[in-house]
Amino acid sequence: MSGVKPSGIVTLLSDFGTQDAYVGAMKGVILRHHPRASLVDITHEVHPFAVLQGAFLLDSAWSMFPPGTVHLAVVDPGVGGTRPAIAMAGADHFFVGPDNGLFTFVLEHIAARAVAIPVADSASATFHGRDVFAPAAAQLVGGTPLERLGAPVTTPARLGDAWATRVGEGWRARVLHCDRFGNVITNLPASSVPRIHAVNGVAVRAVRTYADGSGGELVVLAGSASRVEVAIREGSAATRLRAAAGDSMIVT
Amino acid sequence: MSGVKPSGIVTLLSDFGTQDAYVGAMKGVILRHHPRASLVDITHEVHPFAVLQGAFLLDSAWSMFPPGTVHLAVVDPGVGGTRPAIAMAGADHFFVGPDNGLFTFVLEHIAARAVAIPVADSASATFHGRDVFAPAAAQLVGGTPLERLGAPVTTPARLGDAWATRVGEGWRARVLHCDRFGNVITNLPASSVPRIHAVNGVAVRAVRTYADGSGGELVVLAGSASRVEVAIREGSAATRLRAAAGDSMIVT
Amino acid sequence: MSGVKPSGIVTLLSDFGTQDAYVGAMKGVILRHHPRASLVDITHEVHPFAVLQGAFLLDSAWSMFPPGTVHLAVVDPGVGGTRPAIAMAGADHFFVGPDNGLFTFVLEHIAARAVAIPVADSASATFHGRDVFAPAAAQLVGGTPLERLGAPVTTPARLGDAWATRVGEGWRARVLHCDRFGNVITNLPASSVPRIHAVNGVAVRAVRTYADGSGGELVVLAGSASRVEVAIREGSAATRLRAAAGDSMIVT
Repeated sequence: MSGVKPSGIVTLLSDFGTQDAYVGAMKGVILRHHPRASLVDITHEVHPFAVLQGAFLLDSAWSMFPPGTVHLAVVDPGVGGTRPAIAMAGADHFFVGPDNGLFTFVLEHIAARAVAIPVADSASATFHGRDVFAPAAAQLVGGTPLERLGAPVTTPARLGDAWATRVGEGWRARVLHCDRFGNVITNLPASSVPRIHAVNGVAVRAVRTYADGSGGELVVLAGSASRVEVAIREGSAATRLRAAAGDSMIVT
Repeated sequence: MSGVKPSGIVTLLSDFGTQDAYVGAMKGVILRHHPRASLVDITHEVHPFAVLQGAFLLDSAWSMFPPGTVHLAVVDPGVGGTRPAIAMAGADHFFVGPDNGLFTFVLEHIAARAVAIPVADSASATFHGRDVFAPAAAQLVGGTPLERLGAPVTTPARLGDAWATRVGEGWRARVLHCDRFGNVITNLPASSVPRIHAVNGVAVRAVRTYADGSGGELVVLAGSASRVEVAIREGSAATRLRAAAGDSMIVT
Repeated sequence: MSGVKPSGIVTLLSDFGTQDAYVGAMKGVILRHHPRASLVDITHEVHPFAVLQGAFLLDSAWSMFPPGTVHLAVVDPGVGGTRPAIAMAGADHFFVGPDNGLFTFVLEHIAARAVAIPVADSASATFHGRDVFAPAAAQLVGGTPLERLGAPVTTPARLGDAWATRVGEGWRARVLHCDRFGNVITNLPASSVPRIHAVNGVAVRAVRTYADGSGGELVVLAGSASRVEVAIREGSAATRLRAAAGDSMIVT
């Protein structure tokens, strides 16, 4: 890691939505510190406070970016008290956000060095985006070494429900995300696909690609994120299963 | 065309929405190939698989950009099989996307040279955005000559329903798009405005600007896109006519 | 002001939404004039024609950006006639948009020099975004002196309802904005917080931070924008009060 040159790029992911000025304020702060930063939104439509969904969406995109990119992610249900803030470096990428498990999936891919960023006062996660995380991201994209941002952290937080658990012959899985096309992305590893024949009691067929399903048929396949996806060709599996991010489902 | 210098700008238009990480992943891939590219969203809220609407929205914006800009557009209902991918150059602009008619209106303005981009395997249009189209756009913005991307294509696909057809004294038109202000944009050329007096049997008055309508009155005018628009001053023509992108309407 | 160097950054705020190509067209025009401009969206989801809400959202973000930034804001209910367009400079920032009060809150912070930008013909506010405001913003980010854009304006428009008014023992306030988390931001100055005990007849408790509220309890606090915010910890005050941007409320 030592020596990776910042790419000049900062990605942003949050649950702030786009109808407020919070994202704009956060970007303003980064640019005030580092006017030539290149800012790229991953998404700001993580459901409010849905850390697991945010962790999944971040993991779907970060590794596509060039080495030296800073990934700023803010999904933080914490109200009150002083929330721990973290900055990490690993696999030639940088990460900044709350230390609440948002980097669970990232930590499976990289051996990260991490530091705790000082947070001065209690405030909402929204303020942290602007007052804590954005300045830290700006410092990293400007070339400040990670270690200058705070004291070392040895065990960044990880979510307990990141992966499905065995229940009898099947699994208790969680919905990580439902995409715009109605595909239901679960936290079951893609390797499980061949053994699946039902989701919440509804029959499904294991296929290789979306194209292998017939119209209206519920299928499961290995999705782009190396996880089990439930899909309907030309239809919405999320609507059919009444599934939403965060839901539990029994997969057999 | 030979010799136009890339502007460094890549525009993006898709039906991916903004709640997923698909657009972010696509941008990451472009930036990994060409970190200094400047990325500008046109829109990602084309209705899923609505190629005609996507073709219209792309055509509303591309020519505003500087010469040497690369326009990456992905709206692709194709599931399964190998979808043809295309890259084009004309009028000092570049275009990359599926060869399914998405560039129909662009092709009316430019004499394009086109090549077929190899697509390795069958996958969803979403993957193509990241794995096929984004790398091609990155190559073009980086200065790779079009001809290096693939074999020549002589007749890029065009949509059959791009323009309204005569039916008796009137026309059978299609709704290309309903904008946020409730204006209904049709595929009738703006030159038809003076001859229109009804849309789906509802009386309309031809006017020159939005301001010429009185409150609540349904009017038709020549819109910014050189097409007939139906509008209500301080109201929604789309709601009044129950119109949505893709609908057919009888205009007399 | 004379001599502040443009930062190369143009922020954009409008009521254009993101499902149309209007924002993309506006960005294209800026980049055609000045291809290396860095474009940052504040938001495009101001309610259609809601000038007061736009004024608030602009004021929530502009001062975060570096000196020399150009802020292009377009929320314009004007239909017909020639709408006055304005460009301003003050506190080392630049502003471009309609002269309809959209800069009311900005003008409280800065001593601005202002000029009227010529508007050639009557058209919708949408066209002005592309044809009037975007070229002016591009000139300013490119270093053209403000005075070259038009004739001086001595009194830019200000909104009459920018601040709450006293009514008996209380205030008649307006909702400036409801954010994604359900917080209701009013036009009462934050200094009023300790004297508030009801909103529209519903009891509220004054607190210092979101964390001080108990679950389900309606609280008022000094928000990030130095204004009174109504909030519910882990809930939506906007839903509870049935409040929306632009509404009047009685605060006692």
